[in-house]
Amino acid sequence: MAQLYIHGKSYGVHSFLLQIRSLQDHKPLPGVTVGDIGPKFGYDVMDNGFLALNNVRIPRENMLMKHSRVEPDGTYVKPPSTKLAYGTMVQVRANIVMYSGVVLAKAVTIATRYSCVRRQSEMKPGHPEPQVLDYVTQQYKLFPYLAAAYAFWLTGQTMMSVYTTSSSQISKGDISVLPELHALSASLKALSSAAANVGMEECRLACGGHGYSHASGLPRLYTNATPASTAEGEHVVLMLQTARYLMKSYNQSLQGEKLAGSVAYLSGVQPVPAAGRTRNMLDLGVLCDAYRHRAARVVHETAAQLRSELQAGKDQADAWNATSVDLVKAATAHSQYFVVKNFAERLTDSTLDSSISDVLTRLCQLHALHGLVNNSGDFLEDGYLTGTDIRQARRHINALMAKLRPDAVALVDAFDFPDGILNSLLGRYDGNVYEHLLEWAKASPLNKTDVHQSYHKYLKPFLEANRAKL
Amino acid sequence: MAQLYIHGKSYGVHSFLLQIRSLQDHKPLPGVTVGDIGPKFGYDVMDNGFLALNNVRIPRENMLMKHSRVEPDGTYVKPPSTKLAYGTMVQVRANIVMYSGVVLAKAVTIATRYSCVRRQSEMKPGHPEPQVLDYVTQQYKLFPYLAAAYAFWLTGQTMMSVYTTSSSQISKGDISVLPELHALSASLKALSSAAANVGMEECRLACGGHGYSHASGLPRLYTNATPASTAEGEHVVLMLQTARYLMKSYNQSLQGEKLAGSVAYLSGVQPVPAAGRTRNMLDLGVLCDAYRHRAARVVHETAAQLRSELQAGKDQADAWNATSVDLVKAATAHSQYFVVKNFAERLTDSTLDSSISDVLTRLCQLHALHGLVNNSGDFLEDGYLTGTDIRQARRHINALMAKLRPDAVALVDAFDFPDGILNSLLGRYDGNVYEHLLEWAKASPLNKTDVHQSYHKYLKPFLEANRAKL
Repeated sequence: MAQLYIHGKSYGVHSFLLQIRSLQDHKPLPGVTVGDIGPKFGYDVMDNGFLALNNVRIPRENMLMKHSRVEPDGTYVKPPSTKLAYGTMVQVRANIVMYSGVVLAKAVTIATRYSCVRRQSEMKPGHPEPQVLDYVTQQYKLFPYLAAAYAFWLTGQTMMSVYTTSSSQISKGDISVLPELHALSASLKALSSAAANVGMEECRLACGGHGYSHASGLPRLYTNATPASTAEGEHVVLMLQTARYLMKSYNQSLQGEKLAGSVAYLSGVQPVPAAGRTRNMLDLGVLCDAYRHRAARVVHETAAQLRSELQAGKDQADAWNATSVDLVKAATAHSQYFVVKNFAERLTDSTLDSSISDVLTRLCQLHALHGLVNNSGDFLEDGYLTGTDIRQARRHINALMAKLRPDAVALVDAFDFPDGILNSLLGRYDGNVYEHLLEWAKASPLNKTDVHQSYHKYLKPFLEANRAKL
Repeated sequence: MAQLYIHGKSYGVHSFLLQIRSLQDHKPLPGVTVGDIGPKFGYDVMDNGFLALNNVRIPRENMLMKHSRVEPDGTYVKPPSTKLAYGTMVQVRANIVMYSGVVLAKAVTIATRYSCVRRQSEMKPGHPEPQVLDYVTQQYKLFPYLAAAYAFWLTGQTMMSVYTTSSSQISKGDISVLPELHALSASLKALSSAAANVGMEECRLACGGHGYSHASGLPRLYTNATPASTAEGEHVVLMLQTARYLMKSYNQSLQGEKLAGSVAYLSGVQPVPAAGRTRNMLDLGVLCDAYRHRAARVVHETAAQLRSELQAGKDQADAWNATSVDLVKAATAHSQYFVVKNFAERLTDSTLDSSISDVLTRLCQLHALHGLVNNSGDFLEDGYLTGTDIRQARRHINALMAKLRPDAVALVDAFDFPDGILNSLLGRYDGNVYEHLLEWAKASPLNKTDVHQSYHKYLKPFLEANRAKL
């Protein structure tokens, strides 16, 4: 990517292809300085580099000219729409949503399997040590991420299928669906990659000290997957892109315009129900309504906040900056609603076997209830839910975990990661963890000899020289 | 540590000193198998190992016999109290609380300094790119951790001074203060190390892609400091230890007993104020009251929940397990109250210069308000705070960040980490980040030659063999 200048005038950032090294001897071509950027947290096989060009000529034809072009005489031809480049971005971000589901699934597979092998403490005096997965606190560490892995995978699938359906339309130049898709994919990418980040580490910590060993596979999983939360759009930047679309849509609805499907709900906030009404907090309809109400309320209040900053005399940029924490919150609420609703909708698929749909329903309920309890202030702030609802939600979470416990191993086995892909001794399919941990440790270079060479090189001379003083 | 058996009877786990290797040739002594446990996430200089002993005799004198003893005739002498061993644990955990403050301080120093060097995007058309620290969202990422670093450092200091004051009492055999100290140190260690874990990674992510480079110092800071959240007591285990003390104390208060200082508040929950009352959410007294009320309420409700599980027929162990998620929540609320109250109390120190006390007050307000807004459901659940209070709290946070912005660099400079300790190019005191990043990258072994040896070894033969097909 580089700034395109024609006759001294800048036309903005464009993509170019460029030969960097000689095909004869692989040396950098004249004017090219190139190198590796040094060691990173992980991803050692990825050759991220630096590049400087000094008086390097890039032929006009090296421009990727599908959308914007430069004629031989130097005339610049604009793309039919500046939004066309969003198409690929949407696809890449939908992929990251699925990828976030996959890395979470890997982490939770390792931690769940190991939690059935590992036994710790007497729960009851005189009884054998239980599998740590029998501790409700361990279930509470892992099952919400198990549910989230399914939720993000299903969200990514939906995103990808919407993109595929729309892409022929887009390639014909009809980009009417792009702003909505772009807004959706931005916040979902941010939401899912952040959840994967936190979740992978929670799974590692749930494996105790052994999670810290490279034998667990978890440190490497984390260091290789965490770039996804920065790359292809940083969290806050993406959430603010979505927030911009939400504010615009909300304002359009105030002017009576019809909104696109995923934001249609912004045109009205459901009223807060009368006090004393009881609800069934396990009902997915009730849960989706609660998430929708919360998203709509936060968007409305944030729009009001933005307006009041402008009315207080701030210019657009300063008002936006001053409201940005709330704007991120609004985009987060919007994307969480989408994930919950999408999960619930997928359960209505009539081809699902009822035994499958039962367990998936539990995962969906857990995902929705866990997010609700962890953000309970948002649902309580305007009285839409009550303290009684939240207490009921917490009891339901406990009950769901007990019901999911017998299916937990099957639910991670269903991800179907072979040992070679999981690359984790703790998460081995056969459960023979401790034997293999010892074998693996013995293979460490430090254990090749009974006495390490550093003894002969440093410790022995030191001891001999200082024995008198010791 | 090993099980102590005398004449076939076990007396539990005790500490022993043991010679592992020969002083002549460093070989493991007969019966000893010892080795390194293999590569880990970080901490490469720490020689964590495995050890197996087969028919190894450990002389009686090798026991650390300060408290429990074995007589030459095999008589076992119990320690005066089994709680005596807690003393050292309290000290170690208080140290981890301070250490959590220190590692957070390091991470936030790096991220804050770099956020003043790094410039990104036009905030206003035609204006230069602002320092990223001028974005309110960036302040919202970093300043709460800046405040938390001060909060945990001050908490650790208080813990340590209480321990030092009590330790002469303890060494004289008066262990009456130990249960309280133990309960406090357990949850504070869990709370602070978890916050440090999350905070270090948030600071890394707040540095964009450069946070991922080892040049930032952040990956190594994280991998070396994250063991603290597992070692010396895992998070949930520690929170449950504190919860046990909270439940016991609460039940004692029901029987009219006087409670120790840090839990005295459990003997009564303040009533929920009448509707319509307005409060100043910046007032530290108001904030401490809110945290106290929340902790007391959660402890009370959790005790009721535990009771109802027992009344439903569960035995003690199952009832405890079924309530354990709430028990962890109760211990968390208790420890958060302690940290906020301790910070507020330290500000009343009359030797503080008013300019210092002003800025520290802002940090304390931010710490308390941020925790409150992030757990707003807990404060709203029983109507103690209202939606209006929470909205006011969010506005105060925005205002506090704007006030802290000019002092941010001074507040991290005040930690006084020399460059050699911080070990971060992004966090350099002189701010010359980009020049040094390039120098550092050039020093990478991959950049020693213009053409890497892998070209000659692999790529060139491959290209020559396949050129016709390309």
